[in-house]
Amino acid sequence: MTVNRRFVLAQRPSGLPTASDFRLTEEPAPEIGEGEFLIRNHYASIDPAIRGWLDPGGNYMPPVPIGDAVRASTIGVVESSRCDGFAPGDWVMGLNKIETHSIGRRDGFTHGIDVSAVPSPTAYLSVAGAVGLTAWFGVNDLMQPGQDDTLLISGAAGAVGSLVGQLAKLRGARVVGIAGGPAKCARLIDRYGFDAAIDYRGKDVAALSADIASACPDGVNFVYENVGGTCLDAALLNLATGAQIILCGLISEYNGEAAGARNLWQLLVRTATMRGYLLTQFLHKFPEGTRAMIDLVAQGKLVYDEHVEQGIDNALPALLRLFQGTNEGKMILKLI
Amino acid sequence: MTVNRRFVLAQRPSGLPTASDFRLTEEPAPEIGEGEFLIRNHYASIDPAIRGWLDPGGNYMPPVPIGDAVRASTIGVVESSRCDGFAPGDWVMGLNKIETHSIGRRDGFTHGIDVSAVPSPTAYLSVAGAVGLTAWFGVNDLMQPGQDDTLLISGAAGAVGSLVGQLAKLRGARVVGIAGGPAKCARLIDRYGFDAAIDYRGKDVAALSADIASACPDGVNFVYENVGGTCLDAALLNLATGAQIILCGLISEYNGEAAGARNLWQLLVRTATMRGYLLTQFLHKFPEGTRAMIDLVAQGKLVYDEHVEQGIDNALPALLRLFQGTNEGKMILKLI
Repeated sequence: MTVNRRFVLAQRPSGLPTASDFRLTEEPAPEIGEGEFLIRNHYASIDPAIRGWLDPGGNYMPPVPIGDAVRASTIGVVESSRCDGFAPGDWVMGLNKIETHSIGRRDGFTHGIDVSAVPSPTAYLSVAGAVGLTAWFGVNDLMQPGQDDTLLISGAAGAVGSLVGQLAKLRGARVVGIAGGPAKCARLIDRYGFDAAIDYRGKDVAALSADIASACPDGVNFVYENVGGTCLDAALLNLATGAQIILCGLISEYNGEAAGARNLWQLLVRTATMRGYLLTQFLHKFPEGTRAMIDLVAQGKLVYDEHVEQGIDNALPALLRLFQGTNEGKMILKLI
Repeated sequence: MTVNRRFVLAQRPSGLPTASDFRLTEEPAPEIGEGEFLIRNHYASIDPAIRGWLDPGGNYMPPVPIGDAVRASTIGVVESSRCDGFAPGDWVMGLNKIETHSIGRRDGFTHGIDVSAVPSPTAYLSVAGAVGLTAWFGVNDLMQPGQDDTLLISGAAGAVGSLVGQLAKLRGARVVGIAGGPAKCARLIDRYGFDAAIDYRGKDVAALSADIASACPDGVNFVYENVGGTCLDAALLNLATGAQIILCGLISEYNGEAAGARNLWQLLVRTATMRGYLLTQFLHKFPEGTRAMIDLVAQGKLVYDEHVEQGIDNALPALLRLFQGTNEGKMILKLI
């Protein structure tokens, strides 16, 4: 009998998740029905969005039911199939769960992947996956920064932020990143080619705003916001006229009260726009975006980093690293 | 000698303005130079934006200097002129000051007005002035609501809000207004033809949000925000997918700390947009908008209200009414 090891939600976390909010279970691997296939998951994507799915209201997806394995994008190999187009041995990715075996079905998120096109299958959870697509459409469809524009990115050393900055540089924009600590700031410049880096640690809105003003003397034309709170309020004080803020994430809020933003008046003064962004807006263009990102990697125009933790036992520590900021690159959990 | 009575800023207010922040002065009327004309102001527009101009940072315009008369739009009659196109006896409007006599120059805000086209010259400070234009471009250029859309307006009984609602109704949208107290809510329905009215008084975000949800069961496609604070946070909890929020004003913040908004996460969940709006974005279309508003009034398709206070001695009480919510219609100060 095949055993399915699962990272199951035991109770809804309050604030930062703790060990007692989850349990690891072992169950018989599920039987597949007509139109289904069994996936042996190799890797799971550990994303900040998972935290929202644990709350009673979910976020833009329904909450993970208590007693069920935690939702995550995974990549793996089809073990058995009763679904046309998915054969044993095929590599697939989909929105599944943190578990060793998932049932796959034909849906908008599940599709085959060509692992020969990328340096490692994990690329489909990072540069060629949701993270990379989020950056691609954010830069090239939503913002479209040009060579006269300054783009400010919070969470800039993160998986999405580091790609957003590189893609904006490829369009000729000036790119300034906000990150936590000198090591990450150095990586923004040295590895990702940002024009300037700002360490937010220990700074209030006024101090961070002053640093942004120094790095962006003509104001900021685009803000790519992954963090919220102090970062967002400081960015709001440095908008150029007609600026656009893309709200991609608010990681500073995910384990506590919604801080929101105080300096909204600046949107009016600068006739600026704040736009909420979900990758699913561009579902119809996923193949195009994936190809573009794979090509850029192949051409050596993009670098990306992955932080792989080993084993389902480390699912919680991997998730917590995102909120501690101790991951270096896209957080991925190896399940095999 | 002609005396110029002026409402002068004596010191910058902290919170709600008080009598000691201003003084009334009498000075000789100014001499006109080449390219200038002297305006006998008949009416001044008393707007929430004036409060921001009294602060050290101003808002989207420079602060009023201490010792100078307070900035306001006025309408009046040319008394003498050394400027082609402006002759004695002409009615004009412009961004001038709260004073009986202003120097006029040819600029983007100063132009002649046809008082025969409107029921009263004051219309150029209300339905055919900045207030009316703000509503016109906000509805017909920025939002463009259609018959399948629900529009939520805060400060709905105010000068701008009441026109926004009527213009949106003319496009077939469902219109719901938020106002303070039962009398204003009744006016929204009975006089301005709104579909529903919500009294915000005494309600926290949760209670106001529940009322909005009742009035807008399918969510809100457009929010026209004049107030901020509790109103904005409650609106954010009721967005339909792809909703657009127009930030036209945040009157709840003008005399205190910036409350901002906490529920920004909803922008992301609903892939919604919040857009700061200044009328000056549409400066090039002012003649077109003015004609449209005058025509709608002439056709009986729009009603509007003006609240006229008599005399420059009442400049401060008139301003304070805006923040107390005790004006009924566009606040105008009669200066003659």
